[in-house]
Amino acid sequence: MANKINISNGSTVGKPIHCKAAIGREAGQPLVIEEVIVAPPKAHEVRIKILCTSLCHSDITFWKLKDPPGCYPRIFGHEAVGIVESVGEGVDELEEGDYVVPVFIADCGECKDCKSTESNLCSKFPFKVSPWMPREETSRFTDLNGETLFHFLFISSFSQYTVVDVAHLTKLDPSIPPERACLLSCGISTGIGAASRVANVKPGSSVAIFGMGAIGLAVAEGARLCGATRIIAIDVNPEKYEIGKKFGVTDFINPKTCKDKTVSQARHPWYKKHMLPVESGKSLLGCLFGGLKAKVDVPILAKRYMDKEVQLDDFVTHEMKFDEINKAFELLMEGKCLRCVLWMD
Amino acid sequence: MANKINISNGSTVGKPIHCKAAIGREAGQPLVIEEVIVAPPKAHEVRIKILCTSLCHSDITFWKLKDPPGCYPRIFGHEAVGIVESVGEGVDELEEGDYVVPVFIADCGECKDCKSTESNLCSKFPFKVSPWMPREETSRFTDLNGETLFHFLFISSFSQYTVVDVAHLTKLDPSIPPERACLLSCGISTGIGAASRVANVKPGSSVAIFGMGAIGLAVAEGARLCGATRIIAIDVNPEKYEIGKKFGVTDFINPKTCKDKTVSQARHPWYKKHMLPVESGKSLLGCLFGGLKAKVDVPILAKRYMDKEVQLDDFVTHEMKFDEINKAFELLMEGKCLRCVLWMD
Repeated sequence: MANKINISNGSTVGKPIHCKAAIGREAGQPLVIEEVIVAPPKAHEVRIKILCTSLCHSDITFWKLKDPPGCYPRIFGHEAVGIVESVGEGVDELEEGDYVVPVFIADCGECKDCKSTESNLCSKFPFKVSPWMPREETSRFTDLNGETLFHFLFISSFSQYTVVDVAHLTKLDPSIPPERACLLSCGISTGIGAASRVANVKPGSSVAIFGMGAIGLAVAEGARLCGATRIIAIDVNPEKYEIGKKFGVTDFINPKTCKDKTVSQARHPWYKKHMLPVESGKSLLGCLFGGLKAKVDVPILAKRYMDKEVQLDDFVTHEMKFDEINKAFELLMEGKCLRCVLWMD
Repeated sequence: MANKINISNGSTVGKPIHCKAAIGREAGQPLVIEEVIVAPPKAHEVRIKILCTSLCHSDITFWKLKDPPGCYPRIFGHEAVGIVESVGEGVDELEEGDYVVPVFIADCGECKDCKSTESNLCSKFPFKVSPWMPREETSRFTDLNGETLFHFLFISSFSQYTVVDVAHLTKLDPSIPPERACLLSCGISTGIGAASRVANVKPGSSVAIFGMGAIGLAVAEGARLCGATRIIAIDVNPEKYEIGKKFGVTDFINPKTCKDKTVSQARHPWYKKHMLPVESGKSLLGCLFGGLKAKVDVPILAKRYMDKEVQLDDFVTHEMKFDEINKAFELLMEGKCLRCVLWMD
């Protein structure tokens, strides 16, 4: 595969693009596939053609929100991979044809936090659930009636084309297939990073994971990569043991059937309103994107997948056409899929 | 000062010792100074003559408790320094005349956690607020009526003599005066360790500290030692700014007078029952004894005090005779002292 992927011969550069997008017009209501107009990228922005997007639970969480930061009409989606169609002024690190994954946290490379090894939370473009582009409060999307469509997590990948700030894009070698690369755009990187970077799992250690959705399984994968010898999965769905084994799970506890009271109590430890375990010397480590730096760590994970060290294949339980997006939402809500990849063409 | 301090010429070895202790006979009621009998140390135990003890807020917290782990009659106190009077069978690392600080968390040196650099929480003798010695559920104290007196945090330093497990004792060079050494037995080590070991403050960083009691000030001291350039103290008592400056505080915020809503809200961030800040990528790090290993790190802090790197002097705001212990309790409860050192003789 060539390193540059020619998608337009430059014919669309500087012009609005008409394409299909799935629009959330009301909280919790089925998305509507419509024709939208995607403006050309402004300075430091990049317009990309989405190849495929996968669904993450955060899409559902925010699509259900009636109140702010819920807002409509909005184009959801933030876990994806695409090809650069054109770049705005001042974009030096990317050019037409580059293969990119968008990431919801910025990596500006210039601020104190981006330069520090202690943080992956850019202070120039802080994380927020904004309806706009990160550098100015404007949208690049309009519908055919001229109504502004809001962005989501600076990505909005439920559209055949989208505009993303260069600080939110990571270039990858196109040898990794799109239906695997998109997983690194959010959930799987988050889980692997949570274990390896944030919890900093050491060889020979024991790890307990509460909740074995895609993120929990990715935490198991991260713990396995770090050399954990015992990976204990805790989930109310007994089917998660078998799938968990593919990601290194060695032990399984179902709090519904387990008679050990401690385990049942620990089911959702951080949402309990009791005294926090920090008082007995434990720590509660929060992270976004698993503590990973998007531009440094995502290419490493992609290479490790190609080198058959990181396991990604079994996360993709479903693939569908973009038009079937509402069916994909239902599957995810019913807990019937880990990752569903939607192909945009 | 000689390295060994002769206190008994061996005349008390193997025999019970009669001495004065302050006994908590009822929750929240003034301590009673009485004659008590301190049994000789059993295997792996050490009897020590307390030189001085300082008061820590945990003494007050547990002395107020009507229900378990509150229990009476009990000898409180856990921040102290003393001289080894005699050792039990199997104690090789200490001998009569050694200068020691007791520490409420064990450092057995043998278990997986004591051998690991990742933890300071001994798994052979886990932290608990037990009324007994750590290796068996027995007490070494009785009153003159033959009633058993309970231990506190494996130390019970409100007594002229006490018995402590060797896993809870750290030997120090006697060049550091007792009224400074005792501070390293709990609170000040905890604060310095919380900043330097647990939060791992980096040179040039900014640190905010909520609550400027002795521990908060020790956190400031730890942050200063780590090279933090901005140390922001938050306290409702405006007098804490001046004292804070002695420990490196550069900025002061009083939530009572500050008009910034965010700061007022953040007053007790981890006791609030709202969504935890971990969801925005922050972490809540718990620790006991500041993440320090008692036998390794306390001697280092003592040396750094003697080398005039670590500031301890200004923590001691009061010194009293042991008999005045109830007055010292009142001062601490009224927030009028940082550390009050009680001299046992």
